[in-house]
Parts: sequence; C-alpha cells; structure tokens
Amino acid sequence: MEIQHKRNVILRIMVLLLGVGSIAAFAQEKGNINHPGLILTAEGAEEIRENLASLSMLNKAFEETKSFVDAELEKGIIVPVPKDMAGGFTHERHKTNYFALQKAGVLYQVTKEEKYALYVKNMFLEYAKLYPTLDLHPEERSYARGKIFWQCLNDANWLVYASQAYDCVYDYLTKGERDNLEKNLFIPFANHLSTESPQFFNRIHNHSTWGIAGVGMIGLVMNNQELIDRALNGLSKDNIPKNQKDNDGGLIQKEGVEDFGFLAQIDHLFSPDGYYTEGPYYQRYAMYPFMMLAVGLENLKPEIKIFEYRDKVLVKAVTALLNLTDGNGAFFPLNDAQKGMSYKSRELVAAVDIVYHYGGKNPELLSIAKEQGEVLLDNAGLSVAKDLEENLEKPLVKQSMELRDGSEGKSGGIGIIRSSKGELTLVMKYTAQGEGHGHFDKLSFSLYNGGDEVIPDYGLARFVNIEQKNGGGYLRENKTWAKQTIAHNTLVVNEKSHFNGKFDIGNQFHSDGFFHDFSGEQIQVVSATDEHAIEGVKMHRTMAMISDEAFENPIVLDLLNVSAEGNNQYDLPYYYKEQLVSTNAKLETPESLKAFGDGFGYQHLWVESMGKIQEKPFQLTWLSNRKFYSITTNCVPEDELIFARIGANDPAFNLRREPAIIIRRKDTQNTSFVSVIEAHGSYDPVTEIAKNTYSNIKDVSIAQEDERYVVVEISIKSGENWLFVLSKQDPDKSTKHQLDIKGGTVDWTGPYYFRKNIKSN
Amino acid sequence: MEIQHKRNVILRIMVLLLGVGSIAAFAQEKGNINHPGLILTAEGAEEIRENLASLSMLNKAFEETKSFVDAELEKGIIVPVPKDMAGGFTHERHKTNYFALQKAGVLYQVTKEEKYALYVKNMFLEYAKLYPTLDLHPEERSYARGKIFWQCLNDANWLVYASQAYDCVYDYLTKGERDNLEKNLFIPFANHLSTESPQFFNRIHNHSTWGIAGVGMIGLVMNNQELIDRALNGLSKDNIPKNQKDNDGGLIQKEGVEDFGFLAQIDHLFSPDGYYTEGPYYQRYAMYPFMMLAVGLENLKPEIKIFEYRDKVLVKAVTALLNLTDGNGAFFPLNDAQKGMSYKSRELVAAVDIVYHYGGKNPELLSIAKEQGEVLLDNAGLSVAKDLEENLEKPLVKQSMELRDGSEGKSGGIGIIRSSKGELTLVMKYTAQGEGHGHFDKLSFSLYNGGDEVIPDYGLARFVNIEQKNGGGYLRENKTWAKQTIAHNTLVVNEKSHFNGKFDIGNQFHSDGFFHDFSGEQIQVVSATDEHAIEGVKMHRTMAMISDEAFENPIVLDLLNVSAEGNNQYDLPYYYKEQLVSTNAKLETPESLKAFGDGFGYQHLWVESMGKIQEKPFQLTWLSNRKFYSITTNCVPEDELIFARIGANDPAFNLRREPAIIIRRKDTQNTSFVSVIEAHGSYDPVTEIAKNTYSNIKDVSIAQEDERYVVVEISIKSGENWLFVLSKQDPDKSTKHQLDIKGGTVDWTGPYYFRKNIKSN
Repeated sequence: MEIQHKRNVILRIMVLLLGVGSIAAFAQEKGNINHPGLILTAEGAEEIRENLASLSMLNKAFEETKSFVDAELEKGIIVPVPKDMAGGFTHERHKTNYFALQKAGVLYQVTKEEKYALYVKNMFLEYAKLYPTLDLHPEERSYARGKIFWQCLNDANWLVYASQAYDCVYDYLTKGERDNLEKNLFIPFANHLSTESPQFFNRIHNHSTWGIAGVGMIGLVMNNQELIDRALNGLSKDNIPKNQKDNDGGLIQKEGVEDFGFLAQIDHLFSPDGYYTEGPYYQRYAMYPFMMLAVGLENLKPEIKIFEYRDKVLVKAVTALLNLTDGNGAFFPLNDAQKGMSYKSRELVAAVDIVYHYGGKNPELLSIAKEQGEVLLDNAGLSVAKDLEENLEKPLVKQSMELRDGSEGKSGGIGIIRSSKGELTLVMKYTAQGEGHGHFDKLSFSLYNGGDEVIPDYGLARFVNIEQKNGGGYLRENKTWAKQTIAHNTLVVNEKSHFNGKFDIGNQFHSDGFFHDFSGEQIQVVSATDEHAIEGVKMHRTMAMISDEAFENPIVLDLLNVSAEGNNQYDLPYYYKEQLVSTNAKLETPESLKAFGDGFGYQHLWVESMGKIQEKPFQLTWLSNRKFYSITTNCVPEDELIFARIGANDPAFNLRREPAIIIRRKDTQNTSFVSVIEAHGSYDPVTEIAKNTYSNIKDVSIAQEDERYVVVEISIKSGENWLFVLSKQDPDKSTKHQLDIKGGTVDWTGPYYFRKNIKSN
Repeated sequence: MEIQHKRNVILRIMVLLLGVGSIAAFAQEKGNINHPGLILTAEGAEEIRENLASLSMLNKAFEETKSFVDAELEKGIIVPVPKDMAGGFTHERHKTNYFALQKAGVLYQVTKEEKYALYVKNMFLEYAKLYPTLDLHPEERSYARGKIFWQCLNDANWLVYASQAYDCVYDYLTKGERDNLEKNLFIPFANHLSTESPQFFNRIHNHSTWGIAGVGMIGLVMNNQELIDRALNGLSKDNIPKNQKDNDGGLIQKEGVEDFGFLAQIDHLFSPDGYYTEGPYYQRYAMYPFMMLAVGLENLKPEIKIFEYRDKVLVKAVTALLNLTDGNGAFFPLNDAQKGMSYKSRELVAAVDIVYHYGGKNPELLSIAKEQGEVLLDNAGLSVAKDLEENLEKPLVKQSMELRDGSEGKSGGIGIIRSSKGELTLVMKYTAQGEGHGHFDKLSFSLYNGGDEVIPDYGLARFVNIEQKNGGGYLRENKTWAKQTIAHNTLVVNEKSHFNGKFDIGNQFHSDGFFHDFSGEQIQVVSATDEHAIEGVKMHRTMAMISDEAFENPIVLDLLNVSAEGNNQYDLPYYYKEQLVSTNAKLETPESLKAFGDGFGYQHLWVESMGKIQEKPFQLTWLSNRKFYSITTNCVPEDELIFARIGANDPAFNLRREPAIIIRRKDTQNTSFVSVIEAHGSYDPVTEIAKNTYSNIKDVSIAQEDERYVVVEISIKSGENWLFVLSKQDPDKSTKHQLDIKGGTVDWTGPYYFRKNIKSN
C-alpha cells in the first residue's frame, strides 16, 4: 500500500505541474477544441444517429429523451426568478430546465434538428439575462447559498448538466452569443460555486464533488484553464474558519486535510479498494459527478488518464458498488441508506456505461447493463448497446471480498462472504464511522439469502420524497433509533451506544480487520476487532461460512469475544423477519408491553416476551419469504432472552414493526457469544409441503478459552462434532500453533483452525 | 330457480330408477367393460404414447411420473402393518403406495412396460394378504376409524387412487388374481368405507365425498352395480343417532337432509352457481374426489351425463373457483383458508383439465392450464396439451359476479366487484356460516389490487404441515382470533362476535343479498343485509366501485347502515398492511401497550394508539408494496379511533403482527358509517419518486337519512360533489323513486341513484 500511495502522490504532483504549466500550454497550442467533445462527442453523435435503428437499447434511450424534450419544447422557455425551496415551483422548474437543456443538446447533435439547438440557445439567453440580476437565493438556511436554488449544491447540479448542453450547441452559437453567455452566465456561475463559496468548494465531501464537476466541466467546454485548474486542484486560499460546520453539523474541513479539488476528492473519499466511507447508498449518489467530470477529462484532457488515476480507483469504486449488493442488486443498507436502492438506479446506469467504455470494457459490466435495461444516450451508452447487441456480456459472479475503508485503506473495512454455490451473503462491517451518515454499529453484520434479508440491517429512518413523512427528510427516529447500536446486529454494553452515540468521538476511530481468508472451499472467515467503541471493552468478532453435506446450505458461525476491564451487561441482538416458528426458550409473556429501555434506541423496542433456557443451547427457528432459518446460541440459564419488536415510542408510526431476539448477559466481565445461523428448507403454500423445517444443530459451545485461543465446538444432530479454533492475538498467516484440545494435541498454521467430523463425546 | 330445481329432482329420480333397474340390466347386457376405461382409457393411453414426443406439457407429466415411479420400483414393495398417525412411518408409506400404484398403472398403459404392471400386481397381492388380517387401526381418535390409516378419510383416498391402478392392470391380471383381490381387498375395503362406517359414508360433507368416490370408482372398475348404486345414492339405512358429531364437533347428519350419495352431495354441497359453502380453500380440497368419480361415470356410465347434471354445476364449481382468486390466482382466504393457496394447486390442475375435456372445451380454461404449467397424464391432460399446442387458449377475463350460497342459492352469497380496467377487486361476503370452517364475519369484505391485499382478510390461524406449529394442525388462535368477528372487516357490536361466536346458532342463519348491479361502466354496486348475527341489530352494507377521471383508480364506497333496538357500542375495523403514512387524527400514544379487550378476539389486539379527529372526516393513508392507499370515513369528534395491531396474548407467536384502524362509536342506536377507499400513486425506491401520495377526497358524509333512504355525499378536492342514494327498503330494480335532496327533487328508478359533478355548496 505504501508504494501505491506514493505513486498517487507522484501522479498528483505531475498533474499539478501539468495543470499550471504544460497542459495549459498544450491547450493553447491546440487551439479550440472540437464541439461537442465533453461527454457526447461529434463522432459519437454521428455513430448514434447511424445505429439508432439497429440498437434497441439505444433507440429506447433516444425515444425517452425525445419524448421528454418534445414535451418541454411545447411548454416553451420558463426561467422564473428564484424564490422557492425544494418542492416549490421555481425550484422544480429550474431543475426540469437543466435536464431539458442537457437532453435537448444531445438531441440536437443526434438528430441535427435545429429546434433543439434553438431551445437551448433561447433558454441560455434567458438565464444570461437573469443571472446578473440575482443576489443570493432568498432562502437563508444553507451554509452555502446558491443563486438559482437555495443551496450551491443544486446550482452545481445545474452547471453539470448545462455545461453538457453548452458543449452541444457551442458551434451553433455565434461568437457574440458565446461571449455573452460566458461573460454573464457561465463564468460568474462557476465563480459563485468556487471562489465566492470556498466553504462549499474546498471540502472533501460529496457536495463539493458536484461543485468541482460543474466548474471543471464548464471550464473544459470553454477551454478555460483557470477553471479547469480550480476544479482539479481546488482553491489555493479559502480562509475557512477552523470549526465551520455545514447544515448537518459536519465540519467543513477536517484537520490535517490540506489538499482540495477533484484529485484530492478521489484520493480522500475512496479507499484503495474503491469503498466510499459513507456507505453504498451515498456512494451511488456521489458517483454521478465523479463520473461526469472524469469523462470530460478523459475526452478533453486524455493525457491525465483520469480512469488510470490512483490505480484505477474510479473503476474500482464502481466494481465495489456492484459487489455491495444482494441477489436483487439492491445495495446493502449500511449506515444511512434507504432499502431497495439498487444498481438499477440512474446513477449506476451512468457509472456502468462509463466505466465499461472508458475503463477497460470489462464484459461483466455488460451483464449489469443488460439487467439495468437502459443505456446513456452518449458515447458510453453507444458502446454498451453495441457490445450487448453482439452478446459480448459475461455474468458478474460476485465473490467474497474485503473492501478496506479509509483513504489509505487502513480504517477497517467491509468483509463480504458469499457461499460458493447458492445465494448466502454475509456482510460484516468494521469500518470507520462513515461521516455524518454513519451508524454506531461497530462489528455489526447482516445476512442475505439471494434477494431476501435473513438478518437485516435496519437502514435509515426516512421515507425519501414522501412529503407526508417530514417532507421526505430524515425523521427524528433516524437519530433516536436507526443510528443507535441496539438497532444493529452487534454488541451493546450497559445499554449505551458505541461512543455513547457521539459522532465527534466516533469519527476519530475505526475498527480493525484482524484477518480474512476466503480461499477455503469448506470455510471462509473474516475477523475484526474494536477497542474504541466502548470504553474499557474490547470486542473481537469472527464470522465464518462453512459448507458441508450435513447442511442444505452453508452455515454461518458467529463468534464474539468480549474482554473488559470490569463487569458489564451485554446485549447481543439478532434481527429477523416475519414469523417465529419455534424456540426452546421458556417464555413469559407480559400482559402489557413496555419499552425495553429509555434511551439509545431501547425506548423504541417493545418487549413482547422474556425467555429463559432450561437446557443449552438457545434455539430459535423462523419462517421468512417461504424459507426457514434457525439460530443456535451458547446461552446459559442465567442469560435473559428478550423477544423484542421495533415500534415503541413511535407516535407517528415511522418505524417498521420488525422482530429481534436479544441475548442479555448480566454482571459479566469477559465472555464469548457463539452462534450458528442456518438457512434451511422451504414452505410452499400451494403444495403445502414443508421441507427441512428443523435446525440440524444440536449444540454450539465454547469448549475452551484463554488469553490466546478460543475453541468452538459445533455438534450436529447426526452425531458429528466440529472444531473451530481462533488465535485471538496473532493474525499472522504463517505462525505455527500448537494447542491441547480435549485431550489431544492439535497443530496448525495461521490464525484459525477448523476440523470436521471429530467423534462425539 | 324453482324450475331448475325441479329438473334436478326429476333427473335424480331417473338416475335412481336407472340405478336399480335399467342401468344394471344394460350393464349386464353389455358384459365386461374395456380396461382401462375409468379415468385413463385404452385409446387415451395409445394417443398419449403417440404424442409424448410432440406435446411438451404431456412429456413433462410423463417424465415426472416416471421419475417418481422408477424410484419407488427401486425401493421394492413395502406394505407395513398399520400403526402410525399422520407423519409416522406406516401412514406416510401407505400414502406413498397409493400414489405409486396409480402412477405405475398409468405408466404401464402408456409405456406397455410390464415392470409397472408387475409392481402394481405385487403390491395389490400384499395388500390382499394384509387386509383380511386387519382390525380397526389402533389409533382410536377418529369418529370413523380406518384400517390402513387412522381414519376412513385416508382409507378412502387410498381407494380413489388404487381403483385407477386396478383398472390399468385389470387385463394384465388372471381371473384368479382378480377374484382374489376383489374378494380379499376391494370389496371388503369398499364395505368398510360404506356399510360398515355409515357415519362416514352417509353424510353431506367432504369426508364422505372421498368415501363415495372410492366406493364408486372401484365399483365401476369391477362393474359391481351394488357398489355403484351405493356411491350414487348412499346407504338406504344407516341408524345414525340424531346428535352424533365428528371430531371437529360437526353434526354427522343435519336435520332435514335425507338423501345421500354422490348425487345428493352435488345437490347439497354446491349452490346453483357452483359455490361451496365452506369457501374456496376447502372447495379446492373437495374438488378432486368429485372430479374423479365424475370422470369415471362419464367414461363408464355416460348415459348419466354427470357433467350436465344440475345444470352443469360441476363445471360451474370450477369456474366459480377460478373466479374466487386475486391477480396471482390465489384464492380469497374466506373462512378457514391458508393464504397463498391458488389455482396452481394439483387439485385445480386436475379440475381444469377435466372440466376442459369433459365440460365443453372452454378455451379460457386453457389459459389457466398454461399458467399452471402442468397437465394430468390421462385423457383430459392429453386434450389440454394438444389444444395448447395448437394455441387455442383465450384469456380468462374475470368479471364482476355474485356467487349465491346454499344448495338452492337462497343463503346469501359472495359479491365480487372487479374494476373494468385495472386490477381492483372487492369481495363482499354475505353467505351462510360455512359449516365448521366458517368465520363469524357477516357482511365483511376484503379488497385486492392485482395480487396485493389492500384490505386483507386474515384467513386461518394455522401453518399447514409445519410440524412445530401444533403438528401443522389448527392453532388455538384459529378459534380465539381468526374466526372471531373483530378479526374481519365488519361490524362488532358491544365487543361480541356475531352469534356470540356460537357455531350452532350461526349455522342456522345466513345473510341476504339485497341487490347487485354490475352493469354500469361508471358504478358497480353490491348490497346485502343481516338481521340475525347480532340480536336486536340490523346491518345493511352497500359497497360500490366508482370510476372517474378525477381518480387514478376506481374508488370504493363502503356504506354500512345500522339500526338497532337500543343503544350500543359499534366497532368497525379496517385491516391494512405495512406502513402508516399519515392520518389527520390526533393521536395519543400509550406508554405501554394493553390488549383491546378480554374476549371475542379483542384480547389479541394491542392498542398502539388512540385517536380523535378535530375536524371531519377521518383520514388515513398507508403505503403497501410500493403503492399508496387512503381511507376517508365520516367520523364525528365523539368517535374513538383505535390504531390496533394483532399479536396480544399470543405466547407462541402464532399471529401475524398486522395493523388495523378500528372506528368505535359508543352509546348509539341507529347510525351509518360511510367510507371511501382509494388506491393511488406509487413509490419506487430506485428512482425515489413518490407519485400521487395524497388522497383526493375532501369529505364523505351522510347528507340525509330516514327510514327509506340514505343519501351519501362525496366531496372531491377539485370541488366536485357526488351523490349516492340508497333505497334502504326496496331493492326492486323497477321501482320509481322521488326524493328531495338538498333543496332539489331527484327522480330515479331502482334501488340506488348516483350522480357526479353536482356543485359544491
């Protein structure tokens, strides 16, 4: 990693030098660029025109674009004086305008029909009249107010789209028209987003990605080297006060980060594996401006080799996103994330087409594009449509992988284990906090079976764009419930969230990968630790997926070792879905339901039942989407089993009523929780056949444990016993170990040992 | 109806005469029948053999059958001494045997490979050795114990399948072998199910349908006129005590019914429209033996014209079942019914093929067979496979209809309103009790949007064949919750179920259709009354589906007029699914959840919130499966709004946690509830676009009401007002009415009046 990072630094310096020196000179030498050339090129437009009839996906994109733009042409040019917030007339109108500008520009180039160019010209002329008259938008609530919209973020969106339109009609306009537009609209617009709003532009944040993309793209179209440099490298001066925060309470500039602009964004926002610290839902959102400016650079400044930059991290970012999905292509809802968002979103349609065309024509991307069922109406979309027509796609087979977090890849990560056959996917999270959208969920996990959630992550508490629910914005319960630790499948100590739920503290730390090994056919393992989230407590969670003929599907082993400075109360929740089928716990059902606690999310859980086991282990079987699942845990009779349901203290019915089993272990210092999760059987309501409805696990237990090792024993109903040994202190894959286990000596190399088929006692 | 019923009686008498006289003589004259001839005929087998390669669906059926039978042949003949209950070894083995016998018989005829005939012969010889040694099955809990199985019902199943196998190998066996089998196995077996178990055989009940089918089918194969007569006309003597009951507490013989056997079953169990009083879930179960004996009769006693019998009621029964389904083909879960059971079940595969082949080749049935994706391996399946190969299918367009209940069609019914375009389906239930599987849900309704439940019916409380849940049998909560009135979308008075939840009383009464009119393009109406379910209370519910441009989908009007002898407390629940979006009620959220009551199902509801409205009307919007729904009700500030959730007093987690809104009106004598239900808009989590998320109803109210008329006014947000007037006492479609409404005089003909676009006040 060190080497790679150094390479990036060298490349960065080179680009810096090029930017202020040779690229500028080169551009001067070259003179004016060919238009269009930014996203859609003149050659691309011609080829699209020639292939519209023969490429069905391209034709679909064309027809949709034409239908939208023709409807707008009917309405005429409407450029109102800015006044409203999101949802209001002027906001929505200006938003529709930038889409219409971009699409009309493309249509002009593809059809060569003048009406589209005329529409773009007339609209731009209206904006050029209006813009010089505007002060800041009258709505004052943004930390970075725009002029057309209430915040610079939306103005930046406008510019990302408008710059594409300008490129498409550039040659249609007279020199005088262009001078007018550049002087009265584009340059002051770009200045407002950058030099006049440094708190918006000079950040490492997805907001400024949009600003940079807008400034960079208009700079490229105008061949304005100053704007291009500004976009690539940020403002050299910004005078931003140290503690200035944005509307969400996020710091404008973090200590220690001193480089800004597009390249710095790429350096800092992505890990070397292309993971974006806020999580896949926001990574999707941020991808679009990254991709658009990158395409502009690739077309007009190919010498930068932006898609090669930082060991192809932009390409990796898209690959990472595609892998952060369940069997339906929906993103794992890590941190603030709305469930159901998937790689079929328009951002991913763009990203997949672009990375296919500019990033090496990986045929696996074609299979995703096919599933998306749509392509961009530009060079990238043309490329995808052509190659799909020739059936060049290969299936994207998602593999087990670790995606490191942090710009240097040293801030923990995400471990994804996928079953070799079948559909089980385990996602373990041991990342950094994830900025303002992060959840307090160190070492949490979720489990998927194809497109079904087995052990779900709650996601966010928000109904995006559903006006009745707080105008579509974040709900109070996002903070009081969704971000809290108890809302996740991980350990809560003494009823307090990790970092006591304090973002400023959580943001300073990250969990650490301990080791992972996905090489085994029989067993795949990921292991991680955290010693910051809970004061005086170290958590070490190791999760494995194990395949064996004894089981219909691989089983998931979950081993959580906790060591602490004193006695604590430990709560370990497992969320599940739908219908409890059976449990061996003896239940006490309360007459009335009370909340489980009064803070850190506990106030949102009803206690539906309290359970105790009379004999080990604890077992629960449930039925969800016509499949059975079981969890078996090494509980002791002293453990309390809380059968909880989300929904307490929810006066506006904002939360989903989903169930959880919470294992509570009181007055304990060091302890280990070990569970096996099985996916088994099926139910068909038409044949009424119930298959394989029982767990196949007899027992799971800690056979022995000391400072250095923990030995897990899994007993199967057939009589077989399995051993899993974890080296708790040494993750080195070459270390040789020797341990006396159950009267015999076991030798092995590496951080874990697994053996099946030992005889039952 | 009178005329039709008389015709049935005449036909019945004719069959009786034929049975004891001429048919017997005819059969004697004709001598032995050709084998096979019962279900699969020799000609059919030959044609199947010739067409296996060319008819893909037939080939699929063949391959599946062959794969099952070949695996059984490998295992050899296993005929254990009966001992176990369902789920146990001997039970499951004998069950597999009868399937294997039937399938092996068919394979012998289709392939002419002797190994299949030999297998059937050897298995039968084993049974012929075992059967004479058997006393009653050792398990004593059935009201009608079998010999092979614990109850005659399963023995009858055996005979229905075995008789088909015997038919297929009849000519393969020697006379001596046949004599042995008939003397030692088939005749005593049939006698046990009939003369020796009159309480099983001489009933009007689905159990005896199986017994009759078995006895009749073996009688047909053996050409044994005595058994055939017994099956057709029942036992002439049975000496069944008047009050004898079965294991479910059902009366063996109801007072007044004195004719038994197959024809009486057809007369009494189906309404003239083919509706089966227990509801579609049990109708599906009962269809198989009806169909099989009917095919046997059609093939071997075609002079009976069984598919013509009673104005083709067996054909109508299948048509009725296909119409009692939602957009996924799943049966409406009326009475005891497990959700998800659909016309893709094997019983409906058989019924659809048979009714297609023997009942007039209705091409709409082919489209269902195509959806089912499988056919029978016999003459009927051949016919379907051939005609599908020739693309003769037509879509089955489900229409609005009333299905009358009761053998004479005078015991109320089911009203189904379907939207002309789109997918909305309203199901209103005003039937008789539905025997032992009936629910106390007079005038309840449910609403579907395609395959989605909008206002759901709970169905049964049982997990069929899931052993952990009470062995797969009915759960305690079926009686304490699922059957109770409050579990349904209908009126509960003074917290007591209809008929106080007493089956013996409920079984004596039925609701009454008042009128229905599905002829309008703009409005379709169904109206029904009940004056028995609640002492001293008359309910009159009128439901309409109204189409108008002002609404994205048709709206549902629900008008419930209640008149009573004194003051009562009225509870009107509406169940819904998933996520509450908004309500105009002011909510008081309790700190802890308490059960809503202590009996009649109220003990199973948690009160999540209590609401009051401050201004009329009450409105609730929810989001389910990505679509929005709203209900608007004419509440008054005195009404209590209970936001309830199923799941209280459910120690074994047997119930689904689904929400309801319950409108409670206290200390009231006569009153009318009127609601409008809207399906509107959509939500897409990928685009995050929320469309049409608000109700379009401003108000719904009772504008005026007297003894004879009730006038409903619906106000739309656009400013339009609509009028719906119900003639409460006169359902006659030709009666002329005149009424002063809001200062003007309105004239109309028939039981209701509807007018749009009146001006707002």
